Amino acid sequence: MSSIPASLGTWIDGIAGTHVPVDDRGLQYGDGLFETILVRDGTARFLAAHLGRLARGCARLGIPYDDDALRADVARALAKAPPLAILKLVVTRGSAARRGYAPQPGAPRRLVTLHATGDTRSMTAGVTLGIARTRAATHPALAGLKHLNRLDNVLAAAEIAAGDHDVLMLDVADRIVSGSSCNVFLARDGRLATPKLDSSGVSGVLRGIVQREAPKLGLVVQERALSLADLATADEVLVTNARIGVVPVSRVGEHAFRSFELALRLRGHIEALDA
Amino acid sequence: MSSIPASLGTWIDGIAGTHVPVDDRGLQYGDGLFETILVRDGTARFLAAHLGRLARGCARLGIPYDDDALRADVARALAKAPPLAILKLVVTRGSAARRGYAPQPGAPRRLVTLHATGDTRSMTAGVTLGIARTRAATHPALAGLKHLNRLDNVLAAAEIAAGDHDVLMLDVADRIVSGSSCNVFLARDGRLATPKLDSSGVSGVLRGIVQREAPKLGLVVQERALSLADLATADEVLVTNARIGVVPVSRVGEHAFRSFELALRLRGHIEALDA
Repeated sequence: MSSIPASLGTWIDGIAGTHVPVDDRGLQYGDGLFETILVRDGTARFLAAHLGRLARGCARLGIPYDDDALRADVARALAKAPPLAILKLVVTRGSAARRGYAPQPGAPRRLVTLHATGDTRSMTAGVTLGIARTRAATHPALAGLKHLNRLDNVLAAAEIAAGDHDVLMLDVADRIVSGSSCNVFLARDGRLATPKLDSSGVSGVLRGIVQREAPKLGLVVQERALSLADLATADEVLVTNARIGVVPVSRVGEHAFRSFELALRLRGHIEALDA
Repeated sequence: MSSIPASLGTWIDGIAGTHVPVDDRGLQYGDGLFETILVRDGTARFLAAHLGRLARGCARLGIPYDDDALRADVARALAKAPPLAILKLVVTRGSAARRGYAPQPGAPRRLVTLHATGDTRSMTAGVTLGIARTRAATHPALAGLKHLNRLDNVLAAAEIAAGDHDVLMLDVADRIVSGSSCNVFLARDGRLATPKLDSSGVSGVLRGIVQREAPKLGLVVQERALSLADLATADEVLVTNARIGVVPVSRVGEHAFRSFELALRLRGHIEALDA
Protein backbone atom coordinates (compact mmCIF):
# COMPACT_ATOMS: atom_id res chain seq x y z
CA MET A 1 0.00 0.00 0.00
CA SER A 2 1.23 3.47 -0.78
CA SER A 3 2.25 5.97 1.85
CA ILE A 4 0.45 9.26 2.52
CA PRO A 5 3.04 11.79 1.39
CA ALA A 6 3.20 15.25 2.89
CA SER A 7 0.66 14.26 5.54
CA LEU A 8 1.39 14.97 9.19
CA GLY A 9 -1.33 12.68 10.46
CA THR A 10 -4.51 10.91 9.38
CA TRP A 11 -7.40 9.86 11.58
CA ILE A 12 -10.42 7.78 10.58
CA ASP A 13 -13.39 8.15 12.92
CA GLY A 14 -11.01 9.56 15.49
CA ILE A 15 -8.44 6.76 15.32
CA ALA A 16 -5.03 7.10 13.68
CA GLY A 17 -5.13 5.17 10.42
CA THR A 18 -4.45 5.57 6.73
CA HIS A 19 -6.93 3.32 4.91
CA VAL A 20 -10.69 3.22 4.38
CA PRO A 21 -12.93 0.36 3.26
CA VAL A 22 -13.41 0.04 -0.50
CA ASP A 23 -17.19 0.16 -0.01
CA ASP A 24 -17.09 3.68 1.44
CA ARG A 25 -19.69 5.68 -0.48
CA GLY A 26 -17.35 8.65 -0.62
CA LEU A 27 -15.11 6.54 -2.84
CA GLN A 28 -17.85 4.71 -4.74
CA TYR A 29 -20.03 7.75 -5.55
CA GLY A 30 -18.39 10.90 -4.17
CA ASP A 31 -21.12 10.73 -1.53
CA GLY A 32 -19.74 13.14 1.04
CA LEU A 33 -18.39 16.59 1.85
CA PHE A 34 -15.16 18.20 2.95
CA GLU A 35 -13.58 21.25 4.53
CA THR A 36 -10.07 22.61 4.09
CA ILE A 37 -9.11 24.65 7.15
CA LEU A 38 -6.05 26.81 7.73
CA VAL A 39 -4.28 26.11 11.02
CA ARG A 40 -2.19 29.04 12.27
CA ASP A 41 -0.35 29.05 15.58
CA GLY A 42 -2.47 26.29 17.02
CA THR A 43 -5.82 27.73 15.93
CA ALA A 44 -8.16 26.35 13.27
CA ARG A 45 -9.06 29.62 11.47
CA PHE A 46 -12.78 30.34 10.98
CA LEU A 47 -13.68 26.96 12.46
CA ALA A 48 -17.28 27.92 13.23
CA ALA A 49 -17.85 28.94 9.61
CA HIS A 50 -16.26 25.73 8.30
CA LEU A 51 -18.30 23.50 10.59
CA GLY A 52 -21.43 25.51 9.81
CA ARG A 53 -21.00 24.90 6.08
CA LEU A 54 -20.28 21.21 6.71
CA ALA A 55 -23.42 20.93 8.83
CA ARG A 56 -25.52 22.59 6.10
CA GLY A 57 -24.01 20.27 3.48
CA CYS A 58 -24.73 17.20 5.61
CA ALA A 59 -28.33 18.39 6.06
CA ARG A 60 -28.70 18.88 2.31
CA LEU A 61 -27.34 15.37 1.56
CA GLY A 62 -29.11 13.69 4.48
CA ILE A 63 -25.85 12.64 6.18
CA PRO A 64 -25.88 12.78 9.99
CA TYR A 65 -23.63 15.60 11.28
CA ASP A 66 -21.80 15.02 14.58
CA ASP A 67 -20.49 18.36 15.84
CA ASP A 68 -18.91 16.93 19.01
CA ALA A 69 -17.00 14.26 17.11
CA LEU A 70 -15.74 16.77 14.54
CA ARG A 71 -14.59 19.22 17.22
CA ALA A 72 -12.75 16.37 18.93
CA ASP A 73 -11.17 15.50 15.56
CA VAL A 74 -10.00 19.08 15.16
CA ALA A 75 -8.57 19.21 18.70
CA ARG A 76 -6.72 15.93 18.11
CA ALA A 77 -5.14 17.26 14.91
CA LEU A 78 -4.32 20.68 16.39
CA ALA A 79 -2.24 18.95 19.05
CA LYS A 80 0.06 17.73 16.26
CA ALA A 81 -0.01 20.82 14.06
CA PRO A 82 3.05 22.94 13.23
CA PRO A 83 2.61 26.77 13.26
CA LEU A 84 1.14 26.68 9.75
CA ALA A 85 -0.81 23.68 8.42
CA ILE A 86 -3.91 22.60 6.51
CA LEU A 87 -6.51 20.47 8.21
CA LYS A 88 -8.77 18.58 5.83
CA LEU A 89 -12.01 17.14 7.18
CA VAL A 90 -13.97 14.70 5.01
CA VAL A 91 -17.37 13.32 6.02
CA THR A 92 -18.74 10.51 3.85
CA ARG A 93 -22.01 8.62 4.06
CA GLY A 94 -19.89 5.66 5.21
CA SER A 95 -19.92 2.05 4.08
CA ALA A 96 -22.75 0.81 1.94
CA ALA A 97 -24.90 -1.98 3.34
CA ARG A 98 -25.44 -3.02 -0.27
CA ARG A 99 -24.51 -1.92 -3.78
CA GLY A 100 -26.50 0.86 -5.46
CA TYR A 101 -26.95 4.63 -5.36
CA ALA A 102 -29.84 4.77 -2.89
CA PRO A 103 -28.58 5.80 0.57
CA GLN A 104 -29.27 3.34 3.36
CA PRO A 105 -29.30 4.03 7.08
CA GLY A 106 -25.79 3.74 8.43
CA ALA A 107 -22.93 5.48 10.13
CA PRO A 108 -21.10 8.28 8.30
CA ARG A 109 -17.31 8.18 8.31
CA ARG A 110 -14.93 11.01 9.29
CA LEU A 111 -11.54 11.27 7.61
CA VAL A 112 -9.17 13.87 8.99
CA THR A 113 -5.78 14.68 7.50
CA LEU A 114 -3.22 17.25 8.61
CA HIS A 115 -0.98 18.60 5.84
CA ALA A 116 2.08 20.80 5.77
CA THR A 117 1.63 24.07 3.89
CA GLY A 118 3.73 27.10 3.00
CA ASP A 119 3.03 30.72 3.87
CA THR A 120 1.31 32.91 1.31
CA ARG A 121 2.83 36.33 2.06
CA SER A 122 4.50 36.50 -1.37
CA MET A 123 1.06 36.36 -2.97
CA THR A 124 0.44 39.98 -1.96
CA ALA A 125 2.49 40.86 -5.07
CA GLY A 126 -0.45 39.52 -7.12
CA VAL A 127 -1.15 36.17 -8.76
CA THR A 128 -2.09 35.37 -12.35
CA LEU A 129 -4.97 33.22 -13.59
CA GLY A 130 -5.72 31.54 -16.90
CA ILE A 131 -9.25 30.88 -18.16
CA ALA A 132 -10.24 27.20 -18.18
CA ARG A 133 -11.80 25.49 -21.19
CA THR A 134 -13.42 23.06 -18.69
CA ARG A 135 -16.77 24.41 -17.51
CA ALA A 136 -18.08 24.22 -13.95
CA ALA A 137 -20.82 21.62 -13.55
CA THR A 138 -24.38 22.96 -13.26
CA HIS A 139 -26.42 21.43 -10.46
CA PRO A 140 -28.76 23.65 -8.45
CA ALA A 141 -29.31 21.10 -5.65
CA LEU A 142 -25.55 20.75 -5.09
CA ALA A 143 -24.48 24.34 -5.79
CA GLY A 144 -22.57 25.96 -2.95
CA LEU A 145 -21.75 22.69 -1.19
CA LYS A 146 -18.14 21.59 -0.80
CA HIS A 147 -19.02 18.03 -1.83
CA LEU A 148 -16.74 15.29 -3.09
CA ASN A 149 -17.85 15.44 -6.76
CA ARG A 150 -14.97 17.60 -7.94
CA LEU A 151 -14.05 16.25 -11.38
CA ASP A 152 -14.80 19.60 -13.01
CA ASN A 153 -12.31 21.27 -10.67
CA VAL A 154 -9.77 18.50 -11.34
CA LEU A 155 -10.02 18.89 -15.12
CA ALA A 156 -9.85 22.68 -14.83
CA ALA A 157 -6.83 22.50 -12.48
CA ALA A 158 -5.09 20.30 -15.06
CA GLU A 159 -5.21 23.35 -17.34
CA ILE A 160 -3.29 25.66 -14.96
CA ALA A 161 -0.26 26.97 -16.89
CA ALA A 162 3.18 27.08 -15.29
CA GLY A 163 3.48 30.27 -13.26
CA ASP A 164 -0.27 30.81 -12.97
CA HIS A 165 -1.95 30.42 -9.60
CA ASP A 166 -5.25 29.01 -10.90
CA VAL A 167 -7.75 29.09 -13.76
CA LEU A 168 -11.05 30.94 -13.87
CA MET A 169 -14.02 28.63 -14.49
CA LEU A 170 -17.21 29.59 -16.35
CA ASP A 171 -20.48 27.66 -16.47
CA VAL A 172 -22.10 26.49 -19.72
CA ALA A 173 -23.96 29.82 -19.90
CA ASP A 174 -20.58 31.71 -19.87
CA ARG A 175 -21.10 33.07 -16.37
CA ILE A 176 -18.02 33.31 -14.13
CA VAL A 177 -18.24 30.74 -11.31
CA SER A 178 -14.88 30.68 -9.49
CA GLY A 179 -11.30 29.52 -9.80
CA SER A 180 -10.71 25.78 -9.60
CA SER A 181 -9.81 26.17 -5.91
CA CYS A 182 -10.80 29.74 -5.00
CA ASN A 183 -13.71 32.15 -5.14
CA VAL A 184 -13.50 35.36 -7.14
CA PHE A 185 -14.51 38.96 -6.52
CA LEU A 186 -14.46 41.78 -9.07
CA ALA A 187 -14.15 45.40 -7.92
CA ARG A 188 -15.28 48.44 -9.90
CA ASP A 189 -15.63 52.01 -8.65
CA GLY A 190 -14.99 50.79 -5.11
CA ARG A 191 -17.80 48.21 -5.14
CA LEU A 192 -17.26 44.45 -4.96
CA ALA A 193 -19.23 41.76 -6.79
CA THR A 194 -18.94 37.99 -6.60
CA PRO A 195 -20.75 35.34 -8.65
CA LYS A 196 -24.09 34.17 -7.35
CA LEU A 197 -23.58 30.44 -6.71
CA ASP A 198 -27.14 29.19 -7.14
CA SER A 199 -26.38 26.63 -9.85
CA SER A 200 -22.62 25.95 -9.67
CA GLY A 201 -19.55 26.34 -7.53
CA VAL A 202 -18.55 26.16 -3.89
CA SER A 203 -19.63 28.79 -1.40
CA GLY A 204 -16.21 29.34 0.14
CA VAL A 205 -15.75 30.14 3.81
CA LEU A 206 -13.37 33.02 3.00
CA ARG A 207 -15.89 34.29 0.44
CA GLY A 208 -18.41 34.44 3.28
CA ILE A 209 -15.89 36.18 5.56
CA VAL A 210 -15.27 38.82 2.87
CA GLN A 211 -19.03 39.33 2.50
CA ARG A 212 -19.33 39.70 6.28
CA GLU A 213 -16.29 41.94 6.81
CA ALA A 214 -16.30 44.20 3.73
CA PRO A 215 -19.17 46.39 4.99
CA LYS A 216 -17.15 47.05 8.16
CA LEU A 217 -14.57 48.66 5.85
CA GLY A 218 -17.30 50.66 4.10
CA LEU A 219 -17.33 48.35 1.07
CA VAL A 220 -20.48 47.15 -0.66
CA VAL A 221 -20.49 43.51 -1.87
CA GLN A 222 -23.07 42.24 -4.34
CA GLU A 223 -23.81 38.66 -5.37
CA ARG A 224 -24.80 38.55 -9.03
CA ALA A 225 -24.22 36.99 -12.44
CA LEU A 226 -20.80 38.06 -13.77
CA SER A 227 -19.38 37.59 -17.26
CA LEU A 228 -15.98 38.00 -18.90
CA ALA A 229 -17.26 41.42 -20.01
CA ASP A 230 -17.56 42.38 -16.33
CA LEU A 231 -14.05 41.08 -15.77
CA ALA A 232 -12.72 43.19 -18.65
CA THR A 233 -14.09 46.38 -17.09
CA ALA A 234 -13.09 45.60 -13.49
CA ASP A 235 -10.58 47.81 -11.68
CA GLU A 236 -9.41 44.98 -9.50
CA VAL A 237 -9.81 41.21 -9.13
CA LEU A 238 -9.50 39.31 -5.84
CA VAL A 239 -9.38 35.58 -5.15
CA THR A 240 -10.06 33.93 -1.82
CA ASN A 241 -9.79 30.60 -0.13
CA ALA A 242 -9.10 29.27 3.35
CA ARG A 243 -5.40 28.65 2.67
CA ILE A 244 -4.46 31.85 0.85
CA GLY A 245 -6.92 34.29 2.43
CA VAL A 246 -7.63 37.30 0.20
CA VAL A 247 -5.15 37.67 -2.68
CA PRO A 248 -4.90 40.32 -5.43
CA VAL A 249 -4.88 39.19 -9.06
CA SER A 250 -2.54 40.92 -11.52
CA ARG A 251 -3.74 39.18 -14.67
CA VAL A 252 -6.62 36.95 -15.86
CA GLY A 253 -5.98 35.66 -19.37
CA GLU A 254 -5.24 38.76 -21.43
CA HIS A 255 -6.58 41.24 -18.89
CA ALA A 256 -4.07 42.94 -16.60
CA PHE A 257 -5.08 44.61 -13.32
CA ARG A 258 -2.91 47.25 -11.67
CA SER A 259 -4.89 48.00 -8.53
CA PHE A 260 -4.47 45.76 -5.48
CA GLU A 261 -5.92 48.27 -3.05
CA LEU A 262 -9.15 46.59 -1.96
CA ALA A 263 -7.55 43.14 -1.93
CA LEU A 264 -4.77 44.27 0.38
CA ARG A 265 -7.13 46.23 2.65
CA LEU A 266 -9.42 43.21 3.02
CA ARG A 267 -6.48 40.86 3.41
CA GLY A 268 -4.95 42.91 6.20
CA HIS A 269 -8.28 43.23 8.00
CA ILE A 270 -9.16 39.53 7.73
CA GLU A 271 -5.66 38.28 8.63
CA ALA A 272 -5.89 40.29 11.83
CA LEU A 273 -9.23 38.79 12.90
CA ASP A 274 -9.31 36.33 15.75
CA ALA A 275 -10.40 33.08 14.16
CA MET B 1 -13.10 -1.30 10.35
CA SER B 2 -16.37 -2.31 8.80
CA SER B 3 -16.84 -5.43 6.75
CA ILE B 4 -17.77 -5.41 3.06
CA PRO B 5 -21.30 -6.84 3.16
CA ALA B 6 -22.74 -8.81 0.26
CA SER B 7 -19.32 -8.82 -1.42
CA LEU B 8 -17.90 -12.09 -2.72
CA GLY B 9 -14.39 -10.74 -3.11
CA THR B 10 -12.46 -7.48 -3.39
CA TRP B 11 -9.11 -6.96 -5.10
CA ILE B 12 -6.99 -3.83 -5.10
CA ASP B 13 -4.49 -3.64 -7.94
CA GLY B 14 -4.94 -7.38 -8.38
CA ILE B 15 -4.36 -8.33 -4.75
CA ALA B 16 -7.12 -9.45 -2.38
CA GLY B 17 -7.78 -6.58 0.02
CA THR B 18 -10.58 -4.46 1.38
CA HIS B 19 -9.07 -1.03 2.13
CA VAL B 20 -7.63 1.83 0.10
CA PRO B 21 -5.40 4.73 1.20
CA VAL B 22 -7.26 7.82 2.38
CA ASP B 23 -5.32 9.91 -0.14
CA ASP B 24 -6.82 8.05 -3.12
CA ARG B 25 -8.10 10.73 -5.49
CA GLY B 26 -11.20 8.65 -6.19
CA LEU B 27 -12.17 9.24 -2.58
CA GLN B 28 -10.88 12.81 -2.27
CA TYR B 29 -12.38 14.17 -5.51
CA GLY B 30 -14.35 11.42 -7.27
CA ASP B 31 -11.39 11.35 -9.67
CA GLY B 32 -12.04 8.06 -11.43
CA LEU B 33 -14.43 5.86 -13.38
CA PHE B 34 -16.29 2.60 -12.95
CA GLU B 35 -18.05 -0.23 -14.74
CA THR B 36 -20.79 -2.51 -13.46
CA ILE B 37 -20.71 -5.79 -15.38
CA LEU B 38 -23.17 -8.68 -15.29
CA VAL B 39 -21.53 -12.07 -14.83
CA ARG B 40 -23.64 -14.96 -16.08
CA ASP B 41 -22.48 -18.58 -16.10
CA GLY B 42 -18.83 -17.65 -15.86
CA THR B 43 -18.93 -14.97 -18.55
CA ALA B 44 -18.58 -11.21 -18.07
CA ARG B 45 -21.38 -10.01 -20.38
CA PHE B 46 -20.47 -7.38 -23.01
CA LEU B 47 -16.95 -7.12 -21.57
CA ALA B 48 -15.49 -5.54 -24.71
CA ALA B 49 -18.09 -2.76 -24.59
CA HIS B 50 -17.49 -2.17 -20.86
CA LEU B 51 -13.71 -2.01 -21.23
CA GLY B 52 -14.10 0.18 -24.32
CA ARG B 53 -16.15 2.72 -22.38
CA LEU B 54 -13.68 2.58 -19.49
CA ALA B 55 -10.77 3.16 -21.89
CA ARG B 56 -12.56 6.16 -23.45
CA GLY B 57 -13.31 7.56 -19.99
CA CYS B 58 -9.69 7.15 -18.92
CA ALA B 59 -8.56 8.92 -22.09
CA ARG B 60 -10.98 11.78 -21.41
CA LEU B 61 -9.76 12.19 -17.81
CA GLY B 62 -6.09 11.59 -18.64
CA ILE B 63 -5.85 8.46 -16.47
CA PRO B 64 -3.60 5.67 -17.86
CA TYR B 65 -5.70 2.68 -18.98
CA ASP B 66 -4.17 -0.80 -18.55
CA ASP B 67 -6.19 -3.28 -20.59
CA ASP B 68 -4.05 -6.30 -19.67
CA ALA B 69 -4.30 -5.61 -15.94
CA LEU B 70 -8.09 -5.11 -16.13
CA ARG B 71 -8.60 -8.32 -18.11
CA ALA B 72 -6.53 -10.16 -15.51
CA ASP B 73 -8.71 -8.57 -12.80
CA VAL B 74 -11.83 -9.81 -14.55
CA ALA B 75 -10.43 -13.34 -14.96
CA ARG B 76 -9.47 -13.43 -11.27
CA ALA B 77 -12.99 -12.43 -10.21
CA LEU B 78 -14.72 -14.78 -12.68
CA ALA B 79 -12.92 -17.71 -11.08
CA LYS B 80 -14.85 -16.94 -7.87
CA ALA B 81 -18.19 -15.95 -9.42
CA PRO B 82 -21.46 -17.82 -8.83
CA PRO B 83 -23.75 -18.36 -11.87
CA LEU B 84 -25.12 -14.83 -11.53
CA ALA B 85 -23.09 -11.95 -10.09
CA ILE B 86 -22.12 -8.30 -10.55
CA LEU B 87 -18.52 -7.38 -11.14
CA LYS B 88 -17.69 -3.77 -10.33
CA LEU B 89 -14.47 -2.30 -11.69
CA VAL B 90 -13.29 1.08 -10.40
CA VAL B 91 -10.24 2.87 -11.79
CA THR B 92 -9.08 5.94 -9.86
CA ARG B 93 -6.22 8.33 -10.54
CA GLY B 94 -4.55 6.74 -7.51
CA SER B 95 -2.88 8.33 -4.53
CA ALA B 96 -2.06 12.00 -4.62
CA ALA B 97 1.59 13.00 -4.37
CA ARG B 98 0.33 16.19 -2.77
CA ARG B 99 -2.92 17.90 -1.79
CA GLY B 100 -4.86 19.82 -4.46
CA TYR B 101 -7.07 19.25 -7.49
CA ALA B 102 -4.35 19.31 -10.15
CA PRO B 103 -3.51 15.77 -11.29
CA GLN B 104 0.09 14.73 -10.86
CA PRO B 105 1.89 11.90 -12.63
CA GLY B 106 1.33 8.68 -10.74
CA ALA B 107 -0.08 5.20 -10.86
CA PRO B 108 -3.85 4.75 -11.16
CA ARG B 109 -5.50 2.27 -8.80
CA ARG B 110 -7.83 -0.60 -9.75
CA LEU B 111 -10.57 -1.67 -7.31
CA VAL B 112 -12.51 -4.79 -8.23
CA THR B 113 -15.48 -6.11 -6.26
CA LEU B 114 -17.65 -9.13 -6.95
CA HIS B 115 -21.23 -8.89 -5.64
CA ALA B 116 -24.11 -11.32 -5.37
CA THR B 117 -27.18 -10.36 -7.39
CA GLY B 118 -30.66 -11.74 -8.02
CA ASP B 119 -32.18 -12.69 -11.36
CA THR B 120 -34.37 -10.16 -13.15
CA ARG B 121 -36.86 -12.44 -14.95
CA SER B 122 -39.81 -11.10 -12.95
CA MET B 123 -39.12 -7.64 -14.39
CA THR B 124 -40.61 -8.73 -17.70
CA ALA B 125 -43.98 -8.00 -16.08
CA GLY B 126 -43.02 -4.31 -16.20
CA VAL B 127 -41.49 -1.95 -13.66
CA THR B 128 -42.72 1.43 -12.44
CA LEU B 129 -40.76 4.69 -12.21
CA GLY B 130 -41.30 7.93 -10.35
CA ILE B 131 -40.04 11.30 -11.56
CA ALA B 132 -37.18 12.75 -9.49
CA ARG B 133 -37.17 16.31 -8.21
CA THR B 134 -33.34 16.09 -8.25
CA ARG B 135 -31.99 17.15 -11.62
CA ALA B 136 -29.14 15.47 -13.48
CA ALA B 137 -25.93 17.53 -13.37
CA THR B 138 -25.03 19.36 -16.58
CA HIS B 139 -21.41 19.00 -17.64
CA PRO B 140 -20.59 18.61 -21.32
CA ALA B 141 -16.97 17.48 -20.75
CA LEU B 142 -18.09 14.68 -18.42
CA ALA B 143 -21.37 13.72 -20.13
CA GLY B 144 -21.58 10.06 -21.10
CA LEU B 145 -18.75 8.96 -18.80
CA LYS B 146 -19.42 6.54 -15.96
CA HIS B 147 -17.32 8.62 -13.58
CA LEU B 148 -17.30 8.63 -9.79
CA ASN B 149 -19.14 11.98 -9.37
CA ARG B 150 -22.56 10.48 -8.78
CA LEU B 151 -24.16 12.67 -6.12
CA ASP B 152 -27.01 13.63 -8.46
CA ASN B 153 -27.83 9.94 -8.94
CA VAL B 154 -27.56 9.35 -5.17
CA LEU B 155 -29.99 12.18 -4.36
CA ALA B 156 -32.39 11.03 -7.10
CA ALA B 157 -32.21 7.41 -5.92
CA ALA B 158 -33.11 8.59 -2.42
CA GLU B 159 -36.45 9.68 -3.95
CA ILE B 160 -37.40 6.20 -5.25
CA ALA B 161 -40.79 5.32 -3.72
CA ALA B 162 -41.46 1.89 -2.26
CA GLY B 163 -42.46 -0.46 -5.08
CA ASP B 164 -40.93 1.67 -7.83
CA HIS B 165 -37.88 0.41 -9.67
CA ASP B 166 -36.25 3.81 -10.21
CA VAL B 167 -36.88 7.52 -10.83
CA LEU B 168 -36.67 9.36 -14.13
CA MET B 169 -34.19 12.25 -14.04
CA LEU B 170 -34.48 15.48 -16.04
CA ASP B 171 -31.83 18.13 -16.58
CA VAL B 172 -32.28 21.80 -15.62
CA ALA B 173 -33.73 22.43 -19.10
CA ASP B 174 -36.47 19.81 -18.44
CA ARG B 175 -35.02 17.30 -20.91
CA ILE B 176 -35.21 13.62 -19.96
CA VAL B 177 -31.73 12.26 -19.17
CA SER B 178 -32.11 8.76 -17.70
CA GLY B 179 -33.15 6.86 -14.59
CA SER B 180 -30.86 7.15 -11.60
CA SER B 181 -29.30 3.81 -12.57
CA CYS B 182 -30.64 3.04 -16.04
CA ASN B 183 -30.99 4.52 -19.50
CA VAL B 184 -34.38 5.15 -21.04
CA PHE B 185 -35.92 4.58 -24.48
CA LEU B 186 -39.32 5.79 -25.64
CA ALA B 187 -41.14 3.97 -28.46
CA ARG B 188 -43.80 5.50 -30.69
CA ASP B 189 -45.22 4.06 -33.92
CA GLY B 190 -42.59 1.34 -33.82
CA ARG B 191 -39.63 3.74 -33.63
CA LEU B 192 -37.31 4.08 -30.64
CA ALA B 193 -35.76 7.27 -29.27
CA THR B 194 -33.31 7.74 -26.43
CA PRO B 195 -31.99 10.99 -24.91
CA LYS B 196 -28.92 12.49 -26.51
CA LEU B 197 -26.33 12.49 -23.72
CA ASP B 198 -24.15 15.40 -24.80
CA SER B 199 -24.46 17.42 -21.61
CA SER B 200 -25.62 14.97 -18.88
CA GLY B 201 -25.97 11.31 -18.04
CA VAL B 202 -24.09 8.06 -18.50
CA SER B 203 -23.83 6.42 -21.88
CA GLY B 204 -24.82 2.92 -20.76
CA VAL B 205 -23.33 -0.20 -22.26
CA LEU B 206 -26.79 -1.78 -22.64
CA ARG B 207 -28.00 1.46 -24.23
CA GLY B 208 -25.24 1.02 -26.80
CA ILE B 209 -26.14 -2.65 -27.29
CA VAL B 210 -29.78 -1.68 -27.95
CA GLN B 211 -28.63 0.95 -30.45
CA ARG B 212 -26.46 -1.68 -32.17
CA GLU B 213 -28.98 -4.53 -32.13
CA ALA B 214 -32.32 -2.79 -32.74
CA PRO B 215 -31.68 -2.28 -36.49
CA LYS B 216 -31.14 -6.05 -36.80
CA LEU B 217 -34.76 -6.42 -35.65
CA GLY B 218 -35.88 -3.79 -38.17
CA LEU B 219 -36.18 -1.08 -35.51
CA VAL B 220 -35.00 2.50 -35.96
CA VAL B 221 -33.35 4.15 -32.92
CA GLN B 222 -32.83 7.91 -32.73
CA GLU B 223 -30.79 9.92 -30.25
CA ARG B 224 -32.48 13.24 -29.56
CA ALA B 225 -33.79 15.67 -26.94
CA LEU B 226 -36.85 14.16 -25.21
CA SER B 227 -39.28 15.84 -22.85
CA LEU B 228 -42.09 14.72 -20.56
CA ALA B 229 -44.44 15.64 -23.45
CA ASP B 230 -42.70 12.97 -25.54
CA LEU B 231 -43.10 10.54 -22.67
CA ALA B 232 -46.82 11.30 -22.43
CA THR B 233 -47.34 10.37 -26.09
CA ALA B 234 -45.11 7.28 -26.14
CA ASP B 235 -46.60 3.84 -26.82
CA GLU B 236 -43.97 2.12 -24.77
CA VAL B 237 -41.09 2.93 -22.39
CA LEU B 238 -38.00 0.74 -21.93
CA VAL B 239 -35.21 0.96 -19.38
CA THR B 240 -31.79 -0.65 -19.70
CA ASN B 241 -28.70 -1.36 -17.68
CA ALA B 242 -26.05 -4.04 -17.46
CA ARG B 243 -27.72 -5.85 -14.56
CA ILE B 244 -31.36 -5.82 -15.70
CA GLY B 245 -30.88 -5.88 -19.49
CA VAL B 246 -33.90 -4.44 -21.34
CA VAL B 247 -36.99 -4.06 -19.15
CA PRO B 248 -40.50 -2.80 -20.01
CA VAL B 249 -41.96 0.06 -17.98
CA SER B 250 -45.63 -0.05 -17.01
CA ARG B 251 -45.87 3.39 -15.44
CA VAL B 252 -43.83 6.61 -15.14
CA GLY B 253 -45.38 9.01 -12.67
CA GLU B 254 -49.00 9.35 -13.77
CA HIS B 255 -48.46 7.86 -17.23
CA ALA B 256 -49.34 4.17 -17.71
CA PHE B 257 -47.99 2.12 -20.61
CA ARG B 258 -49.69 -1.08 -21.78
CA SER B 259 -47.41 -2.22 -24.58
CA PHE B 260 -44.29 -4.22 -23.69
CA GLU B 261 -43.81 -5.56 -27.20
CA LEU B 262 -40.59 -3.87 -28.28
CA ALA B 263 -39.02 -4.19 -24.83
CA LEU B 264 -39.62 -7.93 -24.74
CA ARG B 265 -38.45 -8.47 -28.32
CA LEU B 266 -35.24 -6.58 -27.65
CA ARG B 267 -34.78 -8.28 -24.31
CA GLY B 268 -35.14 -11.74 -25.80
CA HIS B 269 -32.76 -10.93 -28.63
CA ILE B 270 -30.10 -9.36 -26.38
CA GLU B 271 -30.33 -12.04 -23.66
CA ALA B 272 -29.60 -14.65 -26.33
CA LEU B 273 -26.46 -12.90 -27.61
CA ASP B 274 -23.10 -14.39 -26.83
CA ALA B 275 -21.44 -11.83 -24.59
